[in-house]
Amino acid sequence: MAARSSLLKRAFSVAFQIRCYSAPAERSIPVAKQKYVPTSGTYPKGFLAGSAYAGVKESNKSYDDIALVVSEKPCPAAAVTTKNIFKAAPVHFCRKALKSSNEGYQGVVVNSGCANAVTGELGFQHAAMMAEAADKCFHQDTQTLVMSTGVIGQRLPIDKITNAIPKAYQALGSTHDHWLNAAKAICTTDTFPKLLSRSFTLPGSQHEGKEYRIAGMTKGAGMIHPNMGTLLGIVCTDAKIEAASMYSLLQSATERSFNCISIDGDTSTNDTVAFFANGAAASDDTPPLQNSDDYREDTAAFVKVFHTFMCDLAKLVVRDGEGATKFVTINVTSDVSMATAKRAATSIARSALVKTALYGKDANWGRILCAIGYAPGIMDSLEVPSESPDHTQSAPPQISPDRTSLSFIPSDGSEELKLLVRGEPETVDEARAKAILEMEDLEIVVKLDDDGVDSGLTGTSDRASKRHKVTVWTCDLSHEYVTINGDYRT
Amino acid sequence: MAARSSLLKRAFSVAFQIRCYSAPAERSIPVAKQKYVPTSGTYPKGFLAGSAYAGVKESNKSYDDIALVVSEKPCPAAAVTTKNIFKAAPVHFCRKALKSSNEGYQGVVVNSGCANAVTGELGFQHAAMMAEAADKCFHQDTQTLVMSTGVIGQRLPIDKITNAIPKAYQALGSTHDHWLNAAKAICTTDTFPKLLSRSFTLPGSQHEGKEYRIAGMTKGAGMIHPNMGTLLGIVCTDAKIEAASMYSLLQSATERSFNCISIDGDTSTNDTVAFFANGAAASDDTPPLQNSDDYREDTAAFVKVFHTFMCDLAKLVVRDGEGATKFVTINVTSDVSMATAKRAATSIARSALVKTALYGKDANWGRILCAIGYAPGIMDSLEVPSESPDHTQSAPPQISPDRTSLSFIPSDGSEELKLLVRGEPETVDEARAKAILEMEDLEIVVKLDDDGVDSGLTGTSDRASKRHKVTVWTCDLSHEYVTINGDYRT
Repeated sequence: MAARSSLLKRAFSVAFQIRCYSAPAERSIPVAKQKYVPTSGTYPKGFLAGSAYAGVKESNKSYDDIALVVSEKPCPAAAVTTKNIFKAAPVHFCRKALKSSNEGYQGVVVNSGCANAVTGELGFQHAAMMAEAADKCFHQDTQTLVMSTGVIGQRLPIDKITNAIPKAYQALGSTHDHWLNAAKAICTTDTFPKLLSRSFTLPGSQHEGKEYRIAGMTKGAGMIHPNMGTLLGIVCTDAKIEAASMYSLLQSATERSFNCISIDGDTSTNDTVAFFANGAAASDDTPPLQNSDDYREDTAAFVKVFHTFMCDLAKLVVRDGEGATKFVTINVTSDVSMATAKRAATSIARSALVKTALYGKDANWGRILCAIGYAPGIMDSLEVPSESPDHTQSAPPQISPDRTSLSFIPSDGSEELKLLVRGEPETVDEARAKAILEMEDLEIVVKLDDDGVDSGLTGTSDRASKRHKVTVWTCDLSHEYVTINGDYRT
Repeated sequence: MAARSSLLKRAFSVAFQIRCYSAPAERSIPVAKQKYVPTSGTYPKGFLAGSAYAGVKESNKSYDDIALVVSEKPCPAAAVTTKNIFKAAPVHFCRKALKSSNEGYQGVVVNSGCANAVTGELGFQHAAMMAEAADKCFHQDTQTLVMSTGVIGQRLPIDKITNAIPKAYQALGSTHDHWLNAAKAICTTDTFPKLLSRSFTLPGSQHEGKEYRIAGMTKGAGMIHPNMGTLLGIVCTDAKIEAASMYSLLQSATERSFNCISIDGDTSTNDTVAFFANGAAASDDTPPLQNSDDYREDTAAFVKVFHTFMCDLAKLVVRDGEGATKFVTINVTSDVSMATAKRAATSIARSALVKTALYGKDANWGRILCAIGYAPGIMDSLEVPSESPDHTQSAPPQISPDRTSLSFIPSDGSEELKLLVRGEPETVDEARAKAILEMEDLEIVVKLDDDGVDSGLTGTSDRASKRHKVTVWTCDLSHEYVTINGDYRT
């Protein structure tokens, strides 16, 4: 009996040593995520990528944590950055540099493991020292942008980093592996590197026979609720783009891609997406793409490619949201305004209660309506207390509960599951709801001004054509998220 | 060996059947929370409380889920309610009733287990039927308020409820147990009933020798981020208060109590705090407390008692936040405005990353600054894209990172732990930080305009006296929260 009891005790002890929820101990890519990592790519001409090991985090003994992405010849650049007031030092550095000029950029140097945010005066010096260390490698009078990602409030081990930058420079190359290694080096709690590339053509006669390429990398996986800029993203193309048009092209693409995702509602101090266009695949006499009436067709064609590319890149961040088990697409339509639709969609994407219900595969759809109802800008904004019994006065609401409809669209192509139709709850087949929520992907459709005419979002009625539609992507909130973030610095 | 292997297998299987994180299976009050449940009380004269079992949730086979709190004689009432656009039917019912008149109220009837929110036309009828069933019991022409709490989007089992209301009426009484049973009946995921009572005197000569009482109950424990109104709260006093002053007294007390707590950032559809004052402890010739220059001293004395009472009641909700292991007080001072201080404090209280770090006892304080920096209204609000290299224009910021300071105040009375001083990070003694975070209670102090003169919040410099100070209470975000909310409806 003693032996048996001791055996039982040991078995229990072993069982309990296995953490129920834990971040991956190694950087092995989970089987389910391997499909998102490309095994080859077509990368833009004249761009190179490289990485090196600096050991920014004490606990990192072997993984590369410095990345360089550069153009062989200096080129125009643009960046969108976080609106957070506590902008990290590298964000300030990039904004200042690009404000002075957005031409003559060689590329960007990135470290992971430490955000260089809320690091005081020394932080600014460190960001400048990173850029300088990269600039030196190029032996010409150019400028390198700087990005950092990781823990906030700790200073960079700057010597380790400046020593590693020349090694990353030595490691530069143009193969798929070079790009993939750089994408790996910028990761923090990401479970897979996020890299995309594709080629495209433009319709104008000046572009006949020419093939262009666009490639980009990004990283997550927490503190993701981008606003204006976002997390880290680097996008390069060998198309030729006028320097003065770079920012507006990037800004409008970001607005509908990276600014439409949320993991945890936390807008980071370091969000930055940088965009480089070196024109290496164009001829000397090819006119640059620009925001003007000339060449409108080519610019429009590029914008289409660029928007889709940026959306696909942003969606990879959601796929790898910290602890995420679900990929959720939230489509909201409103007759009132695009802003109303976006407020509603974003509030759903931020709600801890919606996200835990999705994790629990619980069709607790009332929480979705609740989240819409308290969205900033939608919630009753003006309640004036007075002494009279009629003690409240509300601004006219942007949405009417009795015109709101809600459905789940299953990812297997089967029929939509209606939950609320013009303010009236449907009798929900719980078994079917459960089956839909078992799938990894889910689409939530909210119609804020359902006129009952068209059932889909792509209805053909006059009303449907006037509708404002917003798509936001998010993930669920799991035990794993809590584990990762209760334990991040260790 | 076969026997041993089978035994091991069984041991493992048993071990894994034990859920690592789970909501309490029964309504037994956790040992650590028992100190918050009073064993006696002094309740206001002329008020009665009662409860009954209806079985609103199918899974509830025995717990009372209907509560009645009533005044023996009709009295003035006021209520603050949620600003959520998807207001529940009982919220609409109360607002409509109180808009028509705020005198002649008998009390309030409450059900738990179902929120009667987003329930369409029938939902409004159900709320009215609950009030009617209560009104009937009183055999006089009075009005009863209605509250519901529980799952959103499901209809009330109205027959069960209207049948149980007369039973709750029969069970009315004025003892501590009557009040405690009513407080239990309004609970949902709460782990303990939230009930407070105390007595007070007023300084005016008309009140000489008189003792008044105030008692109240509230419930949590998720979807808590009140705005204007909040969750459910019922507060009764036997002091005499002018009907026309009821709302403003309640509104100002709520603003600094229930509107200063956040569990999960979700503002519920059902938030309502109702306030009744029957004057039963006053004489017929005692003038009512009112918002006027007469009797100012008495009203001010009552306001002080009332504010403290409401804060203590609200803090109980935070103590029982879903899955909470920590009680966190966030004090923010700003020279700019009260609104700036509140935006910063609320954003910290809502941040999933701050809350998981607190749960993990990780002094990852950079996340606190990050949360301040993206607070709505604080984050860069105006970034105007343009074609020029100087592509952004920001509104003047309400806070300056280089004037911001952050400390932890340990709950054992030991010295504050400085983390950031006027934008410069301190070298943090991690062992001490860990020790401070091991304690259940924590105070986070943020000075947005630290002039370096006074070290505490109660400094005596001229600047300190001009400072706007806001206190917000919150809890951490734990595995338990995810378990409870992934699994709420089952």
